[in-house]
Amino acid sequence: MIKKNIKTRVCADGSELTINVFCFKGTKKMVPSVYIQSGIHGSEVQGYLVCLLLIDHFIKYPPLGNVTIVPIANPYGINCKMGEYTLGRFDSVTGDNWNRNYMDLSFLIDDFLLELSNHSFSELIPLFKEKMRKEIKKKSAEKHNSYATKLALEIQQLAISADIILDLHCDTYSLPHIYCSNYLLNSVSYLGIPYIIETPYKFAGALEEAIFYPWKKLVDFYNMQNNEQYTPIIEAFTIELGNQEKIDKYLAEKQLNNILNYLKYKGTISALDKVYDNQITVCKLEDFQTIYTSTGGLVLEYAALGQPLTKQDTLAHIRMSKTLKNIEFSKNFIQDGTLLVKNSYENAIPLTYSASPIVHEGMALMKIMTNYEVREKASKNNFVA
Amino acid sequence: MIKKNIKTRVCADGSELTINVFCFKGTKKMVPSVYIQSGIHGSEVQGYLVCLLLIDHFIKYPPLGNVTIVPIANPYGINCKMGEYTLGRFDSVTGDNWNRNYMDLSFLIDDFLLELSNHSFSELIPLFKEKMRKEIKKKSAEKHNSYATKLALEIQQLAISADIILDLHCDTYSLPHIYCSNYLLNSVSYLGIPYIIETPYKFAGALEEAIFYPWKKLVDFYNMQNNEQYTPIIEAFTIELGNQEKIDKYLAEKQLNNILNYLKYKGTISALDKVYDNQITVCKLEDFQTIYTSTGGLVLEYAALGQPLTKQDTLAHIRMSKTLKNIEFSKNFIQDGTLLVKNSYENAIPLTYSASPIVHEGMALMKIMTNYEVREKASKNNFVA
Amino acid sequence: MIKKNIKTRVCADGSELTINVFCFKGTKKMVPSVYIQSGIHGSEVQGYLVCLLLIDHFIKYPPLGNVTIVPIANPYGINCKMGEYTLGRFDSVTGDNWNRNYMDLSFLIDDFLLELSNHSFSELIPLFKEKMRKEIKKKSAEKHNSYATKLALEIQQLAISADIILDLHCDTYSLPHIYCSNYLLNSVSYLGIPYIIETPYKFAGALEEAIFYPWKKLVDFYNMQNNEQYTPIIEAFTIELGNQEKIDKYLAEKQLNNILNYLKYKGTISALDKVYDNQITVCKLEDFQTIYTSTGGLVLEYAALGQPLTKQDTLAHIRMSKTLKNIEFSKNFIQDGTLLVKNSYENAIPLTYSASPIVHEGMALMKIMTNYEVREKASKNNFVA
Amino acid sequence: MIKKNIKTRVCADGSELTINVFCFKGTKKMVPSVYIQSGIHGSEVQGYLVCLLLIDHFIKYPPLGNVTIVPIANPYGINCKMGEYTLGRFDSVTGDNWNRNYMDLSFLIDDFLLELSNHSFSELIPLFKEKMRKEIKKKSAEKHNSYATKLALEIQQLAISADIILDLHCDTYSLPHIYCSNYLLNSVSYLGIPYIIETPYKFAGALEEAIFYPWKKLVDFYNMQNNEQYTPIIEAFTIELGNQEKIDKYLAEKQLNNILNYLKYKGTISALDKVYDNQITVCKLEDFQTIYTSTGGLVLEYAALGQPLTKQDTLAHIRMSKTLKNIEFSKNFIQDGTLLVKNSYENAIPLTYSASPIVHEGMALMKIMTNYEVREKASKNNFVA
Repeated sequence: MIKKNIKTRVCADGSELTINVFCFKGTKKMVPSVYIQSGIHGSEVQGYLVCLLLIDHFIKYPPLGNVTIVPIANPYGINCKMGEYTLGRFDSVTGDNWNRNYMDLSFLIDDFLLELSNHSFSELIPLFKEKMRKEIKKKSAEKHNSYATKLALEIQQLAISADIILDLHCDTYSLPHIYCSNYLLNSVSYLGIPYIIETPYKFAGALEEAIFYPWKKLVDFYNMQNNEQYTPIIEAFTIELGNQEKIDKYLAEKQLNNILNYLKYKGTISALDKVYDNQITVCKLEDFQTIYTSTGGLVLEYAALGQPLTKQDTLAHIRMSKTLKNIEFSKNFIQDGTLLVKNSYENAIPLTYSASPIVHEGMALMKIMTNYEVREKASKNNFVA
Repeated sequence: MIKKNIKTRVCADGSELTINVFCFKGTKKMVPSVYIQSGIHGSEVQGYLVCLLLIDHFIKYPPLGNVTIVPIANPYGINCKMGEYTLGRFDSVTGDNWNRNYMDLSFLIDDFLLELSNHSFSELIPLFKEKMRKEIKKKSAEKHNSYATKLALEIQQLAISADIILDLHCDTYSLPHIYCSNYLLNSVSYLGIPYIIETPYKFAGALEEAIFYPWKKLVDFYNMQNNEQYTPIIEAFTIELGNQEKIDKYLAEKQLNNILNYLKYKGTISALDKVYDNQITVCKLEDFQTIYTSTGGLVLEYAALGQPLTKQDTLAHIRMSKTLKNIEFSKNFIQDGTLLVKNSYENAIPLTYSASPIVHEGMALMKIMTNYEVREKASKNNFVA
Repeated sequence: MIKKNIKTRVCADGSELTINVFCFKGTKKMVPSVYIQSGIHGSEVQGYLVCLLLIDHFIKYPPLGNVTIVPIANPYGINCKMGEYTLGRFDSVTGDNWNRNYMDLSFLIDDFLLELSNHSFSELIPLFKEKMRKEIKKKSAEKHNSYATKLALEIQQLAISADIILDLHCDTYSLPHIYCSNYLLNSVSYLGIPYIIETPYKFAGALEEAIFYPWKKLVDFYNMQNNEQYTPIIEAFTIELGNQEKIDKYLAEKQLNNILNYLKYKGTISALDKVYDNQITVCKLEDFQTIYTSTGGLVLEYAALGQPLTKQDTLAHIRMSKTLKNIEFSKNFIQDGTLLVKNSYENAIPLTYSASPIVHEGMALMKIMTNYEVREKASKNNFVA
Repeated sequence: MIKKNIKTRVCADGSELTINVFCFKGTKKMVPSVYIQSGIHGSEVQGYLVCLLLIDHFIKYPPLGNVTIVPIANPYGINCKMGEYTLGRFDSVTGDNWNRNYMDLSFLIDDFLLELSNHSFSELIPLFKEKMRKEIKKKSAEKHNSYATKLALEIQQLAISADIILDLHCDTYSLPHIYCSNYLLNSVSYLGIPYIIETPYKFAGALEEAIFYPWKKLVDFYNMQNNEQYTPIIEAFTIELGNQEKIDKYLAEKQLNNILNYLKYKGTISALDKVYDNQITVCKLEDFQTIYTSTGGLVLEYAALGQPLTKQDTLAHIRMSKTLKNIEFSKNFIQDGTLLVKNSYENAIPLTYSASPIVHEGMALMKIMTNYEVREKASKNNFVA
């Protein structure tokens, strides 16, 4: 293992923040390489322990393919305390979401394919990686960027060379779930997490998108030009590991094994034992609904996460303190002042609820899967060759 | 039930915050009156639901003594969002802890006893309440106070007339526990919570102190002057109901019943059934140790709350990210970079751990009872007359 | 004057925030109507006083056209204290910039022009306003939105009917300047502010864009279809009035008069006296450069705002505390540890510098106009008919 | 010059914050030594530049006495951004004011004087310093403290050995002023700042108090025991240099010269030229009144700082947005909705006003000197031997 330190930010007091990068050189050629990071959002730390467990594992059992692990991708973010908690998702100075600043490199494709029209598809892959690396380097050198942009470029440069990118996140109170593209619905079932959000072929600034978006576009163009049917071989997942502001040791060990299982499936590590896949429940990003509160108050109860709901089932009980003004003579004091937030979708599965039961009107209350589809296991205990 | 609204604060935009006060007039004379509040610390909301359940209960079963309930004692505090969480304990503008601004009224005692030297002890009680009420009113009228002071005076004015004061709080991740004075160690065992922190006869600004401190002083002076052995009849408790930023419905119902049990024991409500008390584990406030981190890092594991520990048992595992710099060639990667925080006391019981596993050096990691003593039940299933 | 109150947000404690809307009915028909708001960003309050002065003025001198004034467009934002200051630009819970959530209504144009192909251009204007109003109403009714979206819809609904929209803002430490589209470069010179940022015909979520963008598109389509040369008659400006967190009474009176001058020019109020325009210095938005710090430290000095600079002139002196580590034997202690941030553009005019001299690497230090152009007054003291 | 680095805090990400200490060894014996620090409150940075100028000066002109300078006493504090500003006065996690955690060492005095009853007064000084140093060391070693306590002990250890302690602060918007004890009213007039707040002989946790309080008590005891009339020779000042979040270069140069003048007067540096003192205006701390707002709103205007006011003069104009609800038909729209905050003291001089014009009810609006006294210059251009 080699450890690299990237000096990422000089703070006002002169101290310097460093991103620690742990690199394992694969023992075999032509095997998929992996980039795994955790903590781009400061308060999402379950993946930190998963990364430590992975490093521990790879020290003992060196991988076949190159593995790069960044346990704390955003040291500034993890240091940012607001009250007793950590300001997770955005820069406290600007509001910038730390996971929306990656560079859209798809603009490189036209020129790239023009230059390289006589290459085979497999030859194009390292060349396009190289082209992206150069472009990121150029952008970084050009001028001083906002820190959110600088950090994104540093990370994108680390991630861009890998064949598999796992970006480990957490969500408020939540069940583990994964965001990925349609072309990864087979692969994702080896990651041991049953809830999958299918992201559209659009770029909105997240790392997973910054990876798959140019590749998907490249492959589509290439296929069109050459009348081929390739699919992208690069795999990128945004993996939500559960609750933010929590480290759960037992869950982390399970998550370690799931990631190892997936890497065995991909061939990045050797598999003496069988790999397993799991049934997945999938909905499109546009069907992963955020339920915003229609009033302010205190949430007395949420629907159970993972429990399927039908129309008109109750999502949450919000006590509207305001109505306390009007119900003093009520005989059903609690009931009369409590808003039952109803599910308005035919079928829904709640995956998250708010980090705090104290909500102003218009705050995110829950995220629920709707229009979801259950996909049976593609394979059962198949060996990886 | 009567509901009073106290206009407490005009905000910058002109909106006005209100404290809702729910008053039940007792059906019987000479019965202890009760003041119950929740949420002086914005994020400590378990007591909110307990208050609603109490109001619901008293609507159905009117109490014998007067009962005053304030479910949201600090509307400004509960509205104060910092990131997704609520800034609990202090004013975001000044850092003032919302529970440290009550007025020390013990200075009234000398004059009071001088004026009233020929009264019996029981005659003094309403007179001293009246004297305190006037003093608070005077202080409020005198000049404009900081909002933390204004709020404290408003609440102290509400609480000062009662014979029993229950101030409902929560702590980070925590087991329920109670702060009270030595003279209440018998009473407190009817509240259903086994962990008790015995507070010294000092005034440090909290509501519980603002109540018992002048009464204790008054009684001591009176006893000294008259060679008597009275104890204060006013009871004040700071009750920690468990985790902050959480509302647990099932726990709240249990806590409702415990408070009702205590009120039966005190005679504020009628008791057809038996009252129960419980064994308590007590330590002095000075022995309730806050363990501060000796390094920054991520807490991978905490000792189980409520589980007695002996010397050198591990309190917490802190992963020191810093040492990642030095241990890249370690074969025990996780172990070598992890600080085991050891308990240095002969015996200890952890009651709380930090709201976030992300800690800078010198942040509060846990609170543990040390030098504690277990007190058997004073009584077993005794009837209240 | 009529005052309307829009209930905009129920807070956690049950209190309700209200947007106060002051409406003056114009005394004359066919005169441009105006919508003026301030404070969508909580800490930008200079416009608040300008709005009060405008209301005061219109009470005394009723306008010819309809005037709608909203002095505090975002009561939640203005109430949001973080330390002693106000969290200006974004929601403390989500990071959403309060001025990036307006709805892009340009998608309505195709259908609209199809339906109304036989109408004259001037007939289209009220009809398109009506169409937008309906669409906003529909979106609001559809489902519960995040509060940032809800607020934006409420404001957009108020603004969409007007012919002139003035959105009053402030910037950190700054000279007054205006953001507007190319087609408004003549009009803008009547607003008394010499620095103009020309915004592209793109929609990025701001109010000014939400107004001009569909209108510009509509006019372009209409012109194309009918081979005409109309320009949009709707005018929308984002006016930066100077420093945030400041109310300057004398400046506000001057700014009142400038706005009145512009409204006279437009005919919304009667003009007995001459109107004046001013020379403007204009650069494109892409040439309005934010200079990010390349290191952390303390800014000892900034270049003077408004003072033209040439290449290699110094923009700021940043003391790098870090280098204190290396320069203890320096004879030029301050100079040797100070980074001179150089202007890298041929010509530049600084318009803003950071709200705090304490900066981490990658924070915004200054905004400077580059590639700017000075436009002489179009007219000199011309009468408005 | 020697530079020492004190490692003060490991952050969650593993980075380490350092306090840089610049030490100049005096060229002469028996000359008062000086400790100067800035920035214990993160946003109070004017003193940072003054410290740099002092270091620069002493590199060129070595002092006669030992000089210790700490430009950034609280690196954690200066790094703590909340929105675009810096959270100045308190720990964002706990609310602890960074300048209220020093240790009260006066308890050492009884034992100390008992042990050393046969020493002369001048012999006691180094011995008491040594005793305090040991006590601080012991407290630091004993157990892990909260970071606010740890930092205070680190600083107190640095400061305790000096004869002169200058703790450089700033206040919101403010005129420079100084907090010091009564026995320093002569000395303070050499510091070039005309407004002086006389602090009582009490300990409330600030550095200045932590210094003078044990010394004052020691001297008082010694005098009582020996029937002497000594005054403390240790001098400690809390110097407010003007506005927080600002660095003013020209003011800093003036402030450098004033501090040098004082040090000449004290003999710490050599004085070829005359030293000067100035007239001072003094009030007691209890007469330095904080004016809290009696309503929420926007402050349209403050009374001018430094301008003496008599009773009923206006301190501030607060626009009460709330009353906007009721005054729509007013002919005096601004006047009728504006609260004039009146000065209720016979004489008053405003020294500060709030950092933001946006205030909730009960926020600090201004600080004003009342019952102040003007003291003429003690000396005029006297030479220091």
